[in-house]
Amino acid sequence: MRRVRVLIDCNDEKGLVYKISKVFYDRDLNIENNREFVDREQSRFFMRTVVTGEFNKNRLRDAIKEVIPKSANLRVIEPKKKSIIIFATKESHAIGDILIRHEAGELDADIKAVIANHNTLKGLVERFDIPFFHITANGKSREEHEEEVKRVIDRYRFDYIVLAKYMRILTSDFVSHYRDKIINIHHSFLPAFIGANPYKQAYNRGVKIIGATAHFVTDDLDEGPIIAQDVIPINHRFEWRDMQKAGRDVEKIVLSRALNLVLNDRVFLNGNRTIIF
Amino acid sequence: MRRVRVLIDCNDEKGLVYKISKVFYDRDLNIENNREFVDREQSRFFMRTVVTGEFNKNRLRDAIKEVIPKSANLRVIEPKKKSIIIFATKESHAIGDILIRHEAGELDADIKAVIANHNTLKGLVERFDIPFFHITANGKSREEHEEEVKRVIDRYRFDYIVLAKYMRILTSDFVSHYRDKIINIHHSFLPAFIGANPYKQAYNRGVKIIGATAHFVTDDLDEGPIIAQDVIPINHRFEWRDMQKAGRDVEKIVLSRALNLVLNDRVFLNGNRTIIF
Amino acid sequence: MRRVRVLIDCNDEKGLVYKISKVFYDRDLNIENNREFVDREQSRFFMRTVVTGEFNKNRLRDAIKEVIPKSANLRVIEPKKKSIIIFATKESHAIGDILIRHEAGELDADIKAVIANHNTLKGLVERFDIPFFHITANGKSREEHEEEVKRVIDRYRFDYIVLAKYMRILTSDFVSHYRDKIINIHHSFLPAFIGANPYKQAYNRGVKIIGATAHFVTDDLDEGPIIAQDVIPINHRFEWRDMQKAGRDVEKIVLSRALNLVLNDRVFLNGNRTIIF
Amino acid sequence: MRRVRVLIDCNDEKGLVYKISKVFYDRDLNIENNREFVDREQSRFFMRTVVTGEFNKNRLRDAIKEVIPKSANLRVIEPKKKSIIIFATKESHAIGDILIRHEAGELDADIKAVIANHNTLKGLVERFDIPFFHITANGKSREEHEEEVKRVIDRYRFDYIVLAKYMRILTSDFVSHYRDKIINIHHSFLPAFIGANPYKQAYNRGVKIIGATAHFVTDDLDEGPIIAQDVIPINHRFEWRDMQKAGRDVEKIVLSRALNLVLNDRVFLNGNRTIIF
Repeated sequence: MRRVRVLIDCNDEKGLVYKISKVFYDRDLNIENNREFVDREQSRFFMRTVVTGEFNKNRLRDAIKEVIPKSANLRVIEPKKKSIIIFATKESHAIGDILIRHEAGELDADIKAVIANHNTLKGLVERFDIPFFHITANGKSREEHEEEVKRVIDRYRFDYIVLAKYMRILTSDFVSHYRDKIINIHHSFLPAFIGANPYKQAYNRGVKIIGATAHFVTDDLDEGPIIAQDVIPINHRFEWRDMQKAGRDVEKIVLSRALNLVLNDRVFLNGNRTIIF
Repeated sequence: MRRVRVLIDCNDEKGLVYKISKVFYDRDLNIENNREFVDREQSRFFMRTVVTGEFNKNRLRDAIKEVIPKSANLRVIEPKKKSIIIFATKESHAIGDILIRHEAGELDADIKAVIANHNTLKGLVERFDIPFFHITANGKSREEHEEEVKRVIDRYRFDYIVLAKYMRILTSDFVSHYRDKIINIHHSFLPAFIGANPYKQAYNRGVKIIGATAHFVTDDLDEGPIIAQDVIPINHRFEWRDMQKAGRDVEKIVLSRALNLVLNDRVFLNGNRTIIF
Repeated sequence: MRRVRVLIDCNDEKGLVYKISKVFYDRDLNIENNREFVDREQSRFFMRTVVTGEFNKNRLRDAIKEVIPKSANLRVIEPKKKSIIIFATKESHAIGDILIRHEAGELDADIKAVIANHNTLKGLVERFDIPFFHITANGKSREEHEEEVKRVIDRYRFDYIVLAKYMRILTSDFVSHYRDKIINIHHSFLPAFIGANPYKQAYNRGVKIIGATAHFVTDDLDEGPIIAQDVIPINHRFEWRDMQKAGRDVEKIVLSRALNLVLNDRVFLNGNRTIIF
Repeated sequence: MRRVRVLIDCNDEKGLVYKISKVFYDRDLNIENNREFVDREQSRFFMRTVVTGEFNKNRLRDAIKEVIPKSANLRVIEPKKKSIIIFATKESHAIGDILIRHEAGELDADIKAVIANHNTLKGLVERFDIPFFHITANGKSREEHEEEVKRVIDRYRFDYIVLAKYMRILTSDFVSHYRDKIINIHHSFLPAFIGANPYKQAYNRGVKIIGATAHFVTDDLDEGPIIAQDVIPINHRFEWRDMQKAGRDVEKIVLSRALNLVLNDRVFLNGNRTIIF
């Protein structure tokens, strides 16, 4: 018995659910899980179905293709571990959380390598027998640095790049090259406190809640589609370093939660927004 | 153009989505919103679909009936205001929240009457020109009291009874009589602190979070299917009366949220659990 | 036996707690509650103490004055109901929440009057026998409108103006005139989504959490010191009107919570931040 | 310049703040941070003050002793790393979180050893060069097993035992021996779902929120004083294993947060409740 995830997004039109479920019914497949959503403003249809049964994957894909709009995005995916590369700088909480999940077999991904612009995390990463590449940015242009990074990561096949508190801004070129494949954790409740040192900004503004945001990386700094967010309450006793310390727990949990959603093919892009099933 | 909510729960079997969506497709109906869920452990299927188009409601119901199991529960409901009766005692926060929503036209229900075993809320309720019945329980057996209450409420047609901090326990008979129609707010995060004075219990246990639970009322005190819950953090500075005061905000919001879900036909019973679409 | 709240904020210096508590000790007063905080960055000291005993209020104030810096802010306040004026526009949830608390005696304030630039809420407010003034802004300059508003409210003695979803921007002049006395609820998690229609902004940005912020009003729109904030999770199923509807619960609870803190003299201003005891 | 934490709990009496702050003032000490609380029901006073200056620690302790009740608990503590022993079973999330913090220098403790009744975590723990002792409980009485455990841990000096998902119940004898020194994480929002498999219990009860509780261990299972709690929302799509998976994030964060509070001497016991400064 096989199991696949069928992911469809396309312009909405009458009968989509009927036609798609007919494809499954005609093949005697079992629908294990089914989620749909129509963005009525954009008139766009999203569907994620897990089906099981006896079938040929390519023929199933072709059959679905026949009944949905030509311009539809269709993915028929076997549930298996994906591959990721992690970028980090100095802080260990976000990458540490991923390493522990990885070690426990709870992450639906293999970590292929860790790239860092500082050497701080080398010890931690190598404790887990994962390749660590220290690629300093000192004395290099942004482009030169990224060129070096690319040379290293392109040795690997990977599905996603995870920025686990990578404190550098990526160039447009780099981002375009790995379009929809880069996930970042920003240490604020976006769109509040875009840019550098959000905790200092939060302290200065006197907010009573701080948060973190996991998002896909696009050209615009901290403007990409949001996957997950969470917050914690703070009070006047928190100096900005206390916020930073408390915020780390939110950052790592939000990043891991978003990563988990992405690895399970639960995230659809919808313009600058996301659909999460 | 008509709009109805189609609500189905039945034993799961292959092809349900296909067969039901075929009924809609054959009638050229538009699916405005569709939510499904299969409880795999119980092998039970739940579906809530909003369809629009030109159709005869009874014939649509019959057509759906043909394709789902004989034992299925099927409701085809036109979205319109339901009717409710509110039971209260002395506290005004939960009923007050409902009254304000009602006055603003934000509650999808008409309040037919308020029944209270004390006279405290008479002034408030009558400010809103809603019939208020003070039915004291003093000197009456539980059964006698409920008999009087029944005589009053049975003058009205109503869909739900809302216990908005009604501080009395209902008899089995009463509960059976209005089966699946009574919604209660309990002032704790159930199943913690069942029974009397949960805030005192919470204080004595030294919890750091308190909450409230809206649930359908069944024979077993505070054991009915949960519709909604929420919590707030507290600390050692809270005496039990402070918890009670802070808890009121959670109670009223949770009750109103649950009521809203029920009034919009978004709640399915699944044994002692609920499915919320 | 008397009870007063002693509120002190001043530059920090060694021995403040000792000297102030000595004043209480020498008069045989009982400290019922004591909260202190030192903002180490600003080197500023904040203290709120509730003392009970037999004493002359003015002499107590004079004695405390002697031991704290000349430039200190000192308030010795008897706990009694304050007076408020509410400004509103059309929405009833925030004002409704305050009216219900007021009616129940749970608000530590008398509502002197409600001012609205539309007539929508007249019915609701008058149900509670509270003076309602409809002062339209149509065909008037901002200054002219505020002049009329001032003429009405200046008939009353009041401590605070509460903007309960008052959808107009106040002039600098008005704000300066009632400095530190105007409390607003903004329907976003500030500083995200400053300005008009924050729910539409939130929808467009694709956030996964929305919130509300209660703050003192200053010259800069939505930039005043924050008193309270809270949030709720949302998802891709929320169109902006759903966010608006769900957000109302947060707005009203956050405003009432902030108002309660202010009315109980628990809020200190500290530049653009607040200390909440 | 020295810095100490002064921790006092005693019966409340008039003048305590004055007398204690006089001790600091007379020695020209600086109060860096001061928190007090009076449990009015128990008439009990709690104080945590951080003072800096030039002083002899023992003489300071003696001076404070003079001015507080004979029966008071007084601790004058230099802020330095404490030592902990971790007990675990098979799950890695809670211990993993502590190991990552430890490695980053963010835990105010040295981990002396890890004791586990299974061998599963040996690899993970040894990656961090921390002694791991597999002490199986198979074929041993509870007492025999604990005797072995004791023999191992008593080689170390330690301040606290942290039960990081240690799935065994400790005997009264063991608990008494390490009174107020054992911290546990329970995978439910206590007092809901005491005992075995709280996630299954939660699933069966149909709750909409799950949580975790960190508490001191006492004789009564899951009845000890609560240090920290937190919750996350769930819905009908969560089977109990999904709850378990989602709950792990709450468990580890709550345990680490509680541990951090304890290690910083911020937790006072107050009967079966805690005061957290």
